[in-house]
Amino acid sequence: MDIAFLLYDNMTSLDFIGPYQVLGMVPNARLHLVATEAGPVRTDLGVRIHADKRLEEVSRADILVVPGSPDPSKVMGDERVLSWLRAMDASSRWTTSVCTGALILGAAGLLQGKRATTHWMVLEHLRNFGATPVAERVVFDGKVVAAAGVSAGIDMALALVAKEFGALLAQSIQLGIEYDPAPPFQTGSLRVAPPAVVEAAQAMLQSVVRA
Amino acid sequence: MDIAFLLYDNMTSLDFIGPYQVLGMVPNARLHLVATEAGPVRTDLGVRIHADKRLEEVSRADILVVPGSPDPSKVMGDERVLSWLRAMDASSRWTTSVCTGALILGAAGLLQGKRATTHWMVLEHLRNFGATPVAERVVFDGKVVAAAGVSAGIDMALALVAKEFGALLAQSIQLGIEYDPAPPFQTGSLRVAPPAVVEAAQAMLQSVVRA
Repeated sequence: MDIAFLLYDNMTSLDFIGPYQVLGMVPNARLHLVATEAGPVRTDLGVRIHADKRLEEVSRADILVVPGSPDPSKVMGDERVLSWLRAMDASSRWTTSVCTGALILGAAGLLQGKRATTHWMVLEHLRNFGATPVAERVVFDGKVVAAAGVSAGIDMALALVAKEFGALLAQSIQLGIEYDPAPPFQTGSLRVAPPAVVEAAQAMLQSVVRA
Repeated sequence: MDIAFLLYDNMTSLDFIGPYQVLGMVPNARLHLVATEAGPVRTDLGVRIHADKRLEEVSRADILVVPGSPDPSKVMGDERVLSWLRAMDASSRWTTSVCTGALILGAAGLLQGKRATTHWMVLEHLRNFGATPVAERVVFDGKVVAAAGVSAGIDMALALVAKEFGALLAQSIQLGIEYDPAPPFQTGSLRVAPPAVVEAAQAMLQSVVRA
């Protein structure tokens, strides 16, 4: 089981590490951390994470994971990355995104006619790529799987493990990472957050989100 | 606001990145990634994450975060790290741990007489350090804050932001990372997991957990 993660500068670290922590516990998983060049990428908050391989060193994977970024525009305009994503998708069992990673899949033409989701701030942008936006936490459409913003990658990866490897493994991993969430507030999505929180979050994100 | 994270080889990446993603969104937070030497550490699943500073370069922080590892024993026996933790704790506003990071705080003598929590597999080990184990997701005791296993660091960091900076910022960050969790199963803690899942998780973890 080969699992490839696209890494790039300014990506959001939790978008990557959430699914990485879950999928990495699948027995015999081979994890490939891929970027335009091998070496460190700098995430949106600054921490540097090492890519092991350059794009051309990885030509197929069973599962492809594309994390998001507050500003994915550079990657969305990088034809070398988009070609690689198309080639990877052609032979993947699952092509997945977290947060604005969906916009990157969209830019590669991989969401045409698909239902998908992304971070709530840019949900409607999915229409630009021929996709139907769905305000759900994890959206499966055939082999394409999209997670909502940032933390939703954990739920997405657990759901994917259940589909691909069975419920018991997913449940064991969920217990292994003690994922029995108890968020201190009920403000984690547009569905539940009061207007004052939505405004404050928009102000906080506006300066950085340029999807 | 200075926030220091202890990084070390074999740490669990999500233990670190969960709180990092939340605390890093606090306006004007200065994030310090500290290890015995500056440079990459290799996490338990292999991804390399860069520490910016060596221990001796950081002598105080408002918030100290100690992530866990499936095998924290090496760090727990490293007197240079333990001395640093004691010195950091002496001037911190908050001293926090995720998962088996609590055992590291314990080894430094910082949990004596405290209520605390850690990963469910090793909860009783807290008694070795004079602490009272509490089977809750996040445990505050004075300025010491302990989170349960791996993913609990997200909840801990949000609760901490609320205490230190107020509910609105915590709620905005929660919406910013779209933390409206929808785990696919109700198996994320000993409290809810059925026996077959507990057995499978123990078998999965037993090979690696040597706390």
